[in-house]
Amino acid sequence: MIVLFSGPMKVSGRWRRSIEPDPDGGSVLVLDQTRLPHEIRWLALADLDAAARAIGDMTIRGAPLIGAVAAWGVALALRADPSDAGLARACAVLAATRPTAINLRWALDAMWAQVAALPLDERAAAAARAAARICDGDVAMCEAIGRHGAALIRGIAVTIQRPVRVLTHCNAGWLATVDWGTALAPIYQAHEAGIAVHVWVDETRPRNQGMLTAWELAQHGVPHTVIVDNAGGHLMQRGLVDLCIVGTDRTTRNGDVCNKIGTYLKALAAHDNGVPFYAAVPSPSIDWTVGDPVDIPIEERTGDEVRFVTGRDPTGAVAQIELVPPGIAVANPAFDVTPRRLVTGLITERGVATASRAGLAGLFPEYQGAGS
Amino acid sequence: MIVLFSGPMKVSGRWRRSIEPDPDGGSVLVLDQTRLPHEIRWLALADLDAAARAIGDMTIRGAPLIGAVAAWGVALALRADPSDAGLARACAVLAATRPTAINLRWALDAMWAQVAALPLDERAAAAARAAARICDGDVAMCEAIGRHGAALIRGIAVTIQRPVRVLTHCNAGWLATVDWGTALAPIYQAHEAGIAVHVWVDETRPRNQGMLTAWELAQHGVPHTVIVDNAGGHLMQRGLVDLCIVGTDRTTRNGDVCNKIGTYLKALAAHDNGVPFYAAVPSPSIDWTVGDPVDIPIEERTGDEVRFVTGRDPTGAVAQIELVPPGIAVANPAFDVTPRRLVTGLITERGVATASRAGLAGLFPEYQGAGS
Repeated sequence: MIVLFSGPMKVSGRWRRSIEPDPDGGSVLVLDQTRLPHEIRWLALADLDAAARAIGDMTIRGAPLIGAVAAWGVALALRADPSDAGLARACAVLAATRPTAINLRWALDAMWAQVAALPLDERAAAAARAAARICDGDVAMCEAIGRHGAALIRGIAVTIQRPVRVLTHCNAGWLATVDWGTALAPIYQAHEAGIAVHVWVDETRPRNQGMLTAWELAQHGVPHTVIVDNAGGHLMQRGLVDLCIVGTDRTTRNGDVCNKIGTYLKALAAHDNGVPFYAAVPSPSIDWTVGDPVDIPIEERTGDEVRFVTGRDPTGAVAQIELVPPGIAVANPAFDVTPRRLVTGLITERGVATASRAGLAGLFPEYQGAGS
Repeated sequence: MIVLFSGPMKVSGRWRRSIEPDPDGGSVLVLDQTRLPHEIRWLALADLDAAARAIGDMTIRGAPLIGAVAAWGVALALRADPSDAGLARACAVLAATRPTAINLRWALDAMWAQVAALPLDERAAAAARAAARICDGDVAMCEAIGRHGAALIRGIAVTIQRPVRVLTHCNAGWLATVDWGTALAPIYQAHEAGIAVHVWVDETRPRNQGMLTAWELAQHGVPHTVIVDNAGGHLMQRGLVDLCIVGTDRTTRNGDVCNKIGTYLKALAAHDNGVPFYAAVPSPSIDWTVGDPVDIPIEERTGDEVRFVTGRDPTGAVAQIELVPPGIAVANPAFDVTPRRLVTGLITERGVATASRAGLAGLFPEYQGAGS
């Protein structure tokens, strides 16, 4: 029913992935997301420090892509130093870059398991193969999430007999993953299948990842409209949103969804207006060890992200302006938690689960008992 | 119990009002709010068109100040043309500037009532006196709202025995009124009375009126922190907000509060976390003719407000950057409605009412029967 195609990620008309290793594994190319959508710049990450810096300063972002870059960071580190100490240091440096996205820890654990038992001279090559598998696995998971989510969109389209209006927050598209995306994968697949979709794109202050989402959707020809983060509640009150889909940086085993700051507010509005609210959750984003969302560390990022805004100046050059005058205090929590009672369902690579322990356990029985 | 002082509005250490007529009534000075907080610039409005333009392009904003400037706009118009046609034209031009704030219509009705029956040669002077009375009345109402609201803050301070953390959205301070403000008046009075207050200031995209609020609070020494509009829900979940106070552009006779876009989302979060949520409502902001909030026209403003952001460039000059690339569609609804079920109370100049028809009728019996 759903038309498959070879991944939606298209930069200037050419199919790409958001992370591409060079043939000999000596570096990986990533898109500099701090310059998008104003400038398309690929950066080569050639060592551990470059990978860690790219994650920490959000040159790359998005929980699944953070995991993929961390995996490649381990592989790059082991080329320079394949010792146990080198492996331990690589994992420690990468783990310290960002606290909230659980995919980071998942990827590091997976890399450790793949290489720690190997002789030193086999580690670098094995790590490169393992990182490539993590990337391929991410693409497969996102493609499956797209299929399950597109079926939901199709169901709504059949009922309402007009374009399905989907609201999304932040960027959970192919820029946030290796390809496809999580929240946007269902939208891409629905669009490819000929289902009319319109996307309300939350600007997503302070870093304006909505611009990334709009850019992705534009590259792919999916109709969309950018709105400020304040507007979604009003649109839902007026019946202009049929469905919300967001990504996640960490979902508890009970189905509580930690995602970009502001997600909770949209979930409240969706609940208040009877709008279905889904999170797209690849299983590496599920923290089976956490039951109470208060145990998820919420990253507090620099106030400069609120204080300065990047765009184009009148000459067309990428420029920054200072929005908040010096001397004014700023707080910048980067994530919030949407309680499972506000979540209609979790779209995983194995299908759609209710946002509950039972729902997730039904799809992922092998992880049960990991924490209780 | 509350220490009174001569109005909080202070620009560069000098007491001012946000609108000041020149002695002969030939023009009025207003602060250009499109340049604040980056630049303090007073503009002289000398005729009807200047007044209408200042309201329409948001050189001045805030429902009570819109009413005050409209009143002066009528007075300025009648100096040039005191005829019945001139009066009718002035009211029509000013009424068409912005659709949502009911204070605009209220002020025009009040001006009409004061001058329409007078001989032509008395109209201009009478209109200037009437406009001045509207301004003085606004100051008195806001001061009274401050007293009633400060008592609420004091009650919380006594209970919690630490600084009271108040979240506010947009700017409902003295810049939005003639002096004091609506939502900020209780904060100024509590601060003056020695009650420790900390204000979470919503940035308030797209126009970033939070910068106006931060600037006001800084001029007055009230501790505050700027946050993006996405952050308030998380802060409430973490127990970091004791109270929300917002302004209103129009409140129905049943207590539904129309205010700056995004207010509804904060009210949902307050309700979900048991945080009291108040609107500060001077009676000219109540539309006694409207019962169902769907009958309130919600202004859709230009997408350029979302597309372009104003701040300081690296040289310190006020500059604009383009945030949303050309070709991307943008929607910009300027207000939303917070249903009365989410509102703890309405702080009026006559005291605090429940957000209900009965609550408002109890304080304002003379308006009952205006619509039903």
